[in-house]
Amino acid sequence: MFKTIEWTNDGVRMIDQTKLPSEEIYRTYTDYREVAEAIRSLVIRGAPAIGVAAAMGVALGIKHSAARDEAELRADFEKIADTLARTRPTAVNLFWAIKRMRDTFERALSSCQHEPSGFGKVRAALEKEAQRILAEDIAINEAMGRHGADLMPDAGIVLTHCNAGALATAGYGTALGVIRAAVACGKKLQVFADETRPFLQGARLTAWELAKDQIPVTVITDNMAGHFMHQGGIGAVIVGADRIAANGDTANKIGTYSVAVLAKENGIPFYVAAPLSTIDLSLASGEQIPIEERSSAEVTQLAGVSLAPAGVPARHPAFDVTPQRYISAIITEKGVARAPFSDSLRALFAG
Amino acid sequence: MFKTIEWTNDGVRMIDQTKLPSEEIYRTYTDYREVAEAIRSLVIRGAPAIGVAAAMGVALGIKHSAARDEAELRADFEKIADTLARTRPTAVNLFWAIKRMRDTFERALSSCQHEPSGFGKVRAALEKEAQRILAEDIAINEAMGRHGADLMPDAGIVLTHCNAGALATAGYGTALGVIRAAVACGKKLQVFADETRPFLQGARLTAWELAKDQIPVTVITDNMAGHFMHQGGIGAVIVGADRIAANGDTANKIGTYSVAVLAKENGIPFYVAAPLSTIDLSLASGEQIPIEERSSAEVTQLAGVSLAPAGVPARHPAFDVTPQRYISAIITEKGVARAPFSDSLRALFAG
Repeated sequence: MFKTIEWTNDGVRMIDQTKLPSEEIYRTYTDYREVAEAIRSLVIRGAPAIGVAAAMGVALGIKHSAARDEAELRADFEKIADTLARTRPTAVNLFWAIKRMRDTFERALSSCQHEPSGFGKVRAALEKEAQRILAEDIAINEAMGRHGADLMPDAGIVLTHCNAGALATAGYGTALGVIRAAVACGKKLQVFADETRPFLQGARLTAWELAKDQIPVTVITDNMAGHFMHQGGIGAVIVGADRIAANGDTANKIGTYSVAVLAKENGIPFYVAAPLSTIDLSLASGEQIPIEERSSAEVTQLAGVSLAPAGVPARHPAFDVTPQRYISAIITEKGVARAPFSDSLRALFAG
Repeated sequence: MFKTIEWTNDGVRMIDQTKLPSEEIYRTYTDYREVAEAIRSLVIRGAPAIGVAAAMGVALGIKHSAARDEAELRADFEKIADTLARTRPTAVNLFWAIKRMRDTFERALSSCQHEPSGFGKVRAALEKEAQRILAEDIAINEAMGRHGADLMPDAGIVLTHCNAGALATAGYGTALGVIRAAVACGKKLQVFADETRPFLQGARLTAWELAKDQIPVTVITDNMAGHFMHQGGIGAVIVGADRIAANGDTANKIGTYSVAVLAKENGIPFYVAAPLSTIDLSLASGEQIPIEERSSAEVTQLAGVSLAPAGVPARHPAFDVTPQRYISAIITEKGVARAPFSDSLRALFAG
């Protein structure tokens, strides 16, 4: 089985998701700025995977820091954290992971009494924390799978959008983790994968990893999802999330809102699977979630081919927000939240 | 200005829509089987344009017929009509145009007393009828524009799906004809064009012809339409049609159903612009409209690039059906029909 991302002695190693499915290429980054660029350029993507990458980027940056005293080390930390934080604005896991690394940094610094001689300990603590975030993420996804498997139909087609699988996480996946768990329980599921323009995470990544797992998968263009729902073949929809506000409003890959509206219109349950680290209780509603606008060239160009006339502009919001009223349930590692989400999500954190 | 299709002494000439926008290439076909293949392979597409192409294909076939008597000429006609009728099942204009050519054929045959010496008259009558269908189509689109322009907002963004423009017709367009007419009346419209996967008629064709007309156009991926509607920027949606049942249910390019549901959910009017030749009163509802399923390779391959892993299947329904309850009005050359469409559409034919 492939590894989405791992910490190695040589650096942070990840599968290049811009090259899948035609090429399975691994990159090893030895500089935190390369990790930041990998996040920005979608070599690695998916909210939980971005969190792991950011944590490893921090550990990598501090590993190679030439700081001679605490002030220099702190300055390096801030520069590293800032560079990584500026890569992508929507997925909150990025900021959550950097915060965990910052807490670890402070703890380690005080335990070594802020002495340069103890900086090795700080480095070790950060490397360990980054690897813990990775290991936890897999365990969290497996727990999500256990909670969510029951919600899947016993047989039939489940539709998903984008890639919320092993490639979007440290492994196993959020939405695809629930599907994997349901299949492992003996449910006879097929997956319809929205191709997910413009970056084609569904056609390229979801199809690739499900085919590897021998879970039947069929690719459809995004504009077919509603048609198949209306025809009656889709038993459930499940997607991941990039950020969930306190009221349950969910930012996820552009197109998720449309899928949710179409599911509701056709009486099909619409599930979101995401770890607690994706839930941002500091935001009251989805209106406050920053939506990344990426370059229009990512819409109008594909593999060097122009899809639109030269000079015609394109828009490229990378995410949209699905209001909570379209969401049947949010599946987390702590259990399943249902409306009213303001209460149920908060209860999961308390529980 | 370009011509989508025209009758020339050399044969049927059309712009190759598979090559736009990167290349503006014209093809001249001298054999009706080439015209059939051009329809099948989407060199020409769009319900009204397919109708014109089929009519010209019939005229071309009979022009080159070596029939020596009426029986042979009739046999040739049937073979030609059958070949053209088998190209694409959904757009009813194809069958409507073939029927008009058949009526013309019978009329011309009887007026020349079924004598081989009069076959030149039959040929001339068919050529004239095909050219009349073309000229009528432009006039019809202009009338549709006059009826529909009032329904467009005075300013703001109008969203369209696929290409229902000059390229989908003999000229001017159905949905884009209404937009052109509204702009000509001084309305300050911008168009958001869904790229319309998999064939990208929106990104390639709608963007190309609107840019030529200097009507501001922005390309979006299909999965962004709902997001922009929800954000409040879209004033109206207007699309064409491939076949409209007696109750108003409308078959149009895959993804139209989703756009219609999203428009209704967001309180945005959803208009269909189509000539009476697209309305099939013989079908009570949209459930009876045959939906063409095209090859999965058109979904998984683009310009020679694989978008999905080898061996993963894809579905490719080329059209979907929008139930009439999502349609605010159907704009025709005879006027605007509103619910209940069973009455209003029939009244347009009677009027």
